[in-house]
Amino acid sequence: MSDNRPLLQQLIDALRCLPGVGNKSAQRMAFYILQHNRDGAKLLAEKLLESVENIGECSQCRNLSESDICNLCSNPKRDKSLICVVESPANVVALEQATGYQGLYFVLHGHLSPLDGIGPDDLGLEKLAKIIQRGSLKELIIATNPTVEGEATSYYIQTLAKEQGLIVSRIAHGVPLGGELEFIDQGTLAHAFGARLPIED
Amino acid sequence: MSDNRPLLQQLIDALRCLPGVGNKSAQRMAFYILQHNRDGAKLLAEKLLESVENIGECSQCRNLSESDICNLCSNPKRDKSLICVVESPANVVALEQATGYQGLYFVLHGHLSPLDGIGPDDLGLEKLAKIIQRGSLKELIIATNPTVEGEATSYYIQTLAKEQGLIVSRIAHGVPLGGELEFIDQGTLAHAFGARLPIED
Repeated sequence: MSDNRPLLQQLIDALRCLPGVGNKSAQRMAFYILQHNRDGAKLLAEKLLESVENIGECSQCRNLSESDICNLCSNPKRDKSLICVVESPANVVALEQATGYQGLYFVLHGHLSPLDGIGPDDLGLEKLAKIIQRGSLKELIIATNPTVEGEATSYYIQTLAKEQGLIVSRIAHGVPLGGELEFIDQGTLAHAFGARLPIED
Repeated sequence: MSDNRPLLQQLIDALRCLPGVGNKSAQRMAFYILQHNRDGAKLLAEKLLESVENIGECSQCRNLSESDICNLCSNPKRDKSLICVVESPANVVALEQATGYQGLYFVLHGHLSPLDGIGPDDLGLEKLAKIIQRGSLKELIIATNPTVEGEATSYYIQTLAKEQGLIVSRIAHGVPLGGELEFIDQGTLAHAFGARLPIED
């Protein structure tokens, strides 16, 4: 089907596929690249096509990867007895940048959400169950988001792992470092208070 | 030259050619399109290439156009005795959407800025001078931005036009409609006060 609208309008609409880009931003982007950065636009088009073509999911951890097994899973230096479960590839990047974690990951690409029709199969939890059953894991770290759905997903995975007698941990939630108590939302503060830890000598 | 970095990183860097997109936004965009909108990404790549290939400048008004003469210049219903001078194609869109203006435009693609080496030639002012010399114009409306450079550009164009005895007007500047005086910046308020108009019966 051919599109009869002006090409500029088609470009503006196409730019709106990007998250956080509405009509005004798309317009600004289209004008900017056409006036000031045509080479950048060409490169972007090329990289978009290459990426869509070549980036798939790692067959082990479901992270985005150019190869069948991603760089993390195929790295012999990573500790294969640790698995950290996260909701998205962006979470992997965040954890890799912030922590010195040397284990592997498992990417759910979402969270359990029965109302949206997202069940355990959509999150690859069967695959995770198989990894757990292999028995080579020492610890399963759950780093799903602290939302209602993230907690439900976490609970489901805990059940899976505990059936196999595995150590399961959850990343800590509470007052962020550098945060000031009066500016923290009530939910977080209540959680932090309830989950207080004894100070050891 | 081949790029050895992971394709995902190359995509993130390429996305940064878009204005207002830093590293975090580019990362979010890359993950989003790879996870949720691969078709959108393909379409975007296609439209970027088509646009860079096919969108040039109108040979009359210098607006972005797919054809040698843009839709506005070639529209027989537009009043060819009026020309509105603007700094960018985005300004044309803004004026078209907001006003009922039925004349033509002239797009400078910038403003005079000697420090950046942008002189009259870069703004196509020679072409504008020729249009003025043709003598078919009744009015030249200057709608450059109310910045120092925009004002300087406006002054230069006024001189061009007045040599030919043309009516030159400048769009009004002052307190925006719906604005409240206490929230308007001092410069605008001082200008609005100084440029007050008599109220006619």
